[in-house]
Amino acid sequence: MVLTNTALLVLDMQKDFVGPGTPDFGQAIIPSVIKAVDIARQRGVLVVWVVREHDRLGRDIERFRRHMYGDNKTGPVVKGSKGAELVDGLEITGDDYKLVKTRFSAFFATNLHSFLQSSGIEKLVVVGVQTPNCIRQTVFDAVSLDYKSVTVISDATAASTSAVHEANMVDMKNIGVATPTLQEWCESDA
Amino acid sequence: MVLTNTALLVLDMQKDFVGPGTPDFGQAIIPSVIKAVDIARQRGVLVVWVVREHDRLGRDIERFRRHMYGDNKTGPVVKGSKGAELVDGLEITGDDYKLVKTRFSAFFATNLHSFLQSSGIEKLVVVGVQTPNCIRQTVFDAVSLDYKSVTVISDATAASTSAVHEANMVDMKNIGVATPTLQEWCESDA
Repeated sequence: MVLTNTALLVLDMQKDFVGPGTPDFGQAIIPSVIKAVDIARQRGVLVVWVVREHDRLGRDIERFRRHMYGDNKTGPVVKGSKGAELVDGLEITGDDYKLVKTRFSAFFATNLHSFLQSSGIEKLVVVGVQTPNCIRQTVFDAVSLDYKSVTVISDATAASTSAVHEANMVDMKNIGVATPTLQEWCESDA
Repeated sequence: MVLTNTALLVLDMQKDFVGPGTPDFGQAIIPSVIKAVDIARQRGVLVVWVVREHDRLGRDIERFRRHMYGDNKTGPVVKGSKGAELVDGLEITGDDYKLVKTRFSAFFATNLHSFLQSSGIEKLVVVGVQTPNCIRQTVFDAVSLDYKSVTVISDATAASTSAVHEANMVDMKNIGVATPTLQEWCESDA
């Protein structure tokens, strides 16, 4: 089975966000994300690695986080740093595409939509962190941009609390987004 | 003199575009671009290196150029390749910012405007290649985005023929863009 019109968006699975020393909720989904990527490859689904990479001085991060960067401070995912790398177990290979973003949505001020459109992508599957921020903003933009189907794998995404995760999954479901578990997605043909 | 509200945008001065073996018109402006960068640094002007970097398979380049990339072909400025590097004599240092784009305008599907706005930049000076494409599109977008002043240094930009260069400089001048020579710009306080 080759789903050439589908892309898997893997969001922010970087060492500074979900690596050793970070909160458990993010680390907990790493095995599920690894499995989702494996299944995607088997299905011929295009894998797009969406990551944040920020200026050392924080000049390209949201204002509310800018105080974390600067002369004697090292904020998360500085371009070129170890913390900006993907966590162990996840790797960019073959014809995967890497997309760098500086805001929540993978579509905000990036070439993602143009890249996906001209690659013939009509359906999106989303995994990674965090549900209320990057996942949700990307998903709402994808729906607004008229992708034919948008799927969020419920146990390959995570938030700081399960209440926040669930509340956001409900909101996305209510705008037509599919929210299968990883097992349900693996058993489906989408 | 520190012009903290001004940025110098240096466009596409990469080996595959203006390095050894490329047409003379691009190579000819390298000394002027080097000097413009030097002057900018002396003035405290933020230097932004705008470059193209493309997917090996060409999936993120304009459709009309996509045929140059693919399995057995190596198109220009492939991400990570030697040809994507800046030409000798130009170097990213200190608090310079690097901005990767995949279309003509430096503002198209990038975070440039947001970065410049939140860095307090109100005035832009543009150098690099080529006048009718990346220079002009960036300049028209800058004017449309209401930057207070937009300057194109006439002899630190270039096109394949001087007729094309001149015709485009006229068009830009007609929408309020300043078009000094490098010497005139050096002698001015802007």
